[in-house]
Amino acid sequence: MEYQKQVERWGMLEVSVKGPATGNPFTEQWIRGTFTGHGQKVTAHGFYDGEGVYKVRFMPGYEGEYHFTIEASFMDAPEAGSFTATAPSEGNHGPVKVAYQYHFAYEDGKMYYPVGTTCYVWELQSKELQEKTLAELAKGYFNKIRFCVFPKHYIYNFHEPISYPYEGTPCDTSEMTRQNFGEYSREDHGNHWDFYRFNPAHFRHIEDCIVRLQELGVEADIIVMHPYDRWGFSKMQPDQDDLYWHYVVNRFSAYRNVWWSFANEWDLLRAKSIADWERYAQIVVENDPYQHLRSIHNCRNFYDYSKPWVTHCCIQRQPDVMPVEMTNQWRERYQKPIIIDELCYEGNIAPHWGSISGPEMVRRFWETTLRGGYAGHGETFIHPQNILWWSHGGELHGESPERLRFLRQILEELPQGGLRYGGRRTSYNQEKMPGGRMVRLDYLGKSTPAILEYHMDEPGEYKVEVIDTWNMTIDDQGIFGRNITVDLPGREFMAVRITRL
Amino acid sequence: MEYQKQVERWGMLEVSVKGPATGNPFTEQWIRGTFTGHGQKVTAHGFYDGEGVYKVRFMPGYEGEYHFTIEASFMDAPEAGSFTATAPSEGNHGPVKVAYQYHFAYEDGKMYYPVGTTCYVWELQSKELQEKTLAELAKGYFNKIRFCVFPKHYIYNFHEPISYPYEGTPCDTSEMTRQNFGEYSREDHGNHWDFYRFNPAHFRHIEDCIVRLQELGVEADIIVMHPYDRWGFSKMQPDQDDLYWHYVVNRFSAYRNVWWSFANEWDLLRAKSIADWERYAQIVVENDPYQHLRSIHNCRNFYDYSKPWVTHCCIQRQPDVMPVEMTNQWRERYQKPIIIDELCYEGNIAPHWGSISGPEMVRRFWETTLRGGYAGHGETFIHPQNILWWSHGGELHGESPERLRFLRQILEELPQGGLRYGGRRTSYNQEKMPGGRMVRLDYLGKSTPAILEYHMDEPGEYKVEVIDTWNMTIDDQGIFGRNITVDLPGREFMAVRITRL
Repeated sequence: MEYQKQVERWGMLEVSVKGPATGNPFTEQWIRGTFTGHGQKVTAHGFYDGEGVYKVRFMPGYEGEYHFTIEASFMDAPEAGSFTATAPSEGNHGPVKVAYQYHFAYEDGKMYYPVGTTCYVWELQSKELQEKTLAELAKGYFNKIRFCVFPKHYIYNFHEPISYPYEGTPCDTSEMTRQNFGEYSREDHGNHWDFYRFNPAHFRHIEDCIVRLQELGVEADIIVMHPYDRWGFSKMQPDQDDLYWHYVVNRFSAYRNVWWSFANEWDLLRAKSIADWERYAQIVVENDPYQHLRSIHNCRNFYDYSKPWVTHCCIQRQPDVMPVEMTNQWRERYQKPIIIDELCYEGNIAPHWGSISGPEMVRRFWETTLRGGYAGHGETFIHPQNILWWSHGGELHGESPERLRFLRQILEELPQGGLRYGGRRTSYNQEKMPGGRMVRLDYLGKSTPAILEYHMDEPGEYKVEVIDTWNMTIDDQGIFGRNITVDLPGREFMAVRITRL
Repeated sequence: MEYQKQVERWGMLEVSVKGPATGNPFTEQWIRGTFTGHGQKVTAHGFYDGEGVYKVRFMPGYEGEYHFTIEASFMDAPEAGSFTATAPSEGNHGPVKVAYQYHFAYEDGKMYYPVGTTCYVWELQSKELQEKTLAELAKGYFNKIRFCVFPKHYIYNFHEPISYPYEGTPCDTSEMTRQNFGEYSREDHGNHWDFYRFNPAHFRHIEDCIVRLQELGVEADIIVMHPYDRWGFSKMQPDQDDLYWHYVVNRFSAYRNVWWSFANEWDLLRAKSIADWERYAQIVVENDPYQHLRSIHNCRNFYDYSKPWVTHCCIQRQPDVMPVEMTNQWRERYQKPIIIDELCYEGNIAPHWGSISGPEMVRRFWETTLRGGYAGHGETFIHPQNILWWSHGGELHGESPERLRFLRQILEELPQGGLRYGGRRTSYNQEKMPGGRMVRLDYLGKSTPAILEYHMDEPGEYKVEVIDTWNMTIDDQGIFGRNITVDLPGREFMAVRITRL
């Protein structure tokens, strides 16, 4: 039994145990640990990591001494151990949880305002490309990234991934018929996978990526299932699915920056029923000791976000008549945080969802945020080598990322709490306490007034700033009493921030 | 009895008869005419025009000889007359009617594609300003204008009109309290009107304006009632309302370019019930011999456009979550033409509805039009002398008018028929007849693809053009077979027009 003697709070203890490599260790063996420390007792299920090595992972939620016992199907008797959870290092604020009903905070209380991006299979590209992605993420544009465990088959995504989640061999694409936009037909040309034997290297690599993201302060919003598939991973049998969900949860749960995105476009996974999703949810709820954030992303039809296991709404904006301006209504309806994790991508590919402009991307972010929700970025510029950020990562080419970092800065300057939509254009800081600092934000979007008047409810002193959300400037207009007149440039994409002093 | 001996088809015959000027001619007398000609027999009610003159008006719908008789409460016996309806002069296509269920055509069959504007009380401003308005309209930006019979009391609109519809004197605004944005409180400070005695000069002036518009090819969409009132015209008694509706209909019906807009923001006219509106509708339906187009404009709540008397939907776009992208849904719901006659104004005043940018105005027009509807313009730029096109007319300052004229040009180049929304981005010419010319329009709006592929259903030759709706250019990309690849600049506001040859 090998493990560290010291782990920082919200770090990861990993206990490795040697065991049998014969038969099918994935289905025939089990291992688990029970961890006890200050205020916390957790049973964590482990997993087989290949080559006769079994692992149990644990994330300590408190500082101080922890004791644990490990049991396994192949052990004669439980073995005991202990370690010390030390203070978290700088930048480690613990996992993100729902806070103030509609918002998020790290477990140490620091607010977390999601400004995410999507790179579906960035981690399954070449090492060089992965490093480019991480270098872009290091610029601090985003604090969350959505990506898949399974490889992706879709327009601009027809090459093979660097590894597969299962033992076996993929179908031969050279025998498949190509269609519009180069997409393959869906006939199966010879996939050979053993859905009862995982490829641990595939998962270890994803874990390396989770840690790299953690170091950059980026949450890993892991998409466990998706429909863009030619390998058969979206059409496994229920017992195979369940084995997969257990394996994923047992491996990844102890990483503090993990979120569970049950599916991308769940409603396109035609082989799965609601009962299937609810069964997966039960597996996650029962086996993730840390209750990481859980949601499920839609194409056309929303999943029933009122289900208790759903911690927040992960919404793909519906086209045209259900724009991001619905955010505050969705918030009321579901009484949970709203993240519009997909609201079209900045880019120039043919599909409507992959060709909005930078200004429109930034506008949608501000509009969503002002309405008390959060949004997600993605980028789809045509690239000579078919490297599109949305799927592959690489380099960003758009105009929105630095503006989204600016938005994040505005959010992080809020007093504790989040924004609550107060009606047309106006959002208030949620924690508008008597005597406390209050912030009011007006986002004008496509509205281009040259003047605005405010008549604040309460007497007092108010600091007034005009924010140009596109040019990323903040113009201090000075201190006013309750009657305020703001001069504006008559351009689109302005905001007004009024802070009660 | 005086009248013309020759009137062009869809012109106006006016029969003047001397009668009593004593008592109250508006309520105590009546006059009517019965006109018979080729294929047409019409009873038209007349009106008292002051100074002992009574008038009956008639619009001949056909060429040839017409005979008529005039009866009146003050005439001992009917008097007969006749006149010749000659061929219409150039530019006279007759009144506009609903065509192809969702579109409009003049009575001579020429399609009419509304591209309207709103200047609520342009005709009640100074003569100089009226001429400026007409000079702007002569530039051909618009082919419809919405304006009110009653004067308007609203922000930027607190001066008195050049005339009033009734005999009497207005309240004294110097005694009224001013509030935010300079609006007056609504206390009544001494209006003195006789709601049973019209001021014929007020109506004669409006008729002069209707004719001036007619000469410019502009339809007069007359707003009969509205809530922006300090004179009490929005709070008359039912019998006074009915008298007013009869008077308006009897005076204006015979002008071929008249449309009836029953109200602006009917739902803000708190003193009126649905029963009132339905009663007004009955007056118009029974007394307008030509069945001019009829609709009613909303603030928050749509009137029930499925009522038989409503010929088309006149919609003020609902904010945020009911954008112009609803057009095709509204069309399906009401099975009538859709005109979003108000979708916010290009300008820079403080209210959200008066501060959209030129590009956004043009985008909304294209989006509405592509979805098989029509839209309306308005402009609200802050002006040193408080002259805002939206209410006063004058000069246009925005960027949208010339782009809207360009849109109108694109519409007028369609083969007979209108557009039908075919799903995301795509609209078809409605009259897609086998073997006939077919036009397909894709409006890309905020979508910025660099390439689009088309695979047309039918073999043939297709002319492909890329339209820059903002820069007003049409780039001919040549003739293609059924498989088409279009190169695009990756900018917003592009359209693709594909014409089957």
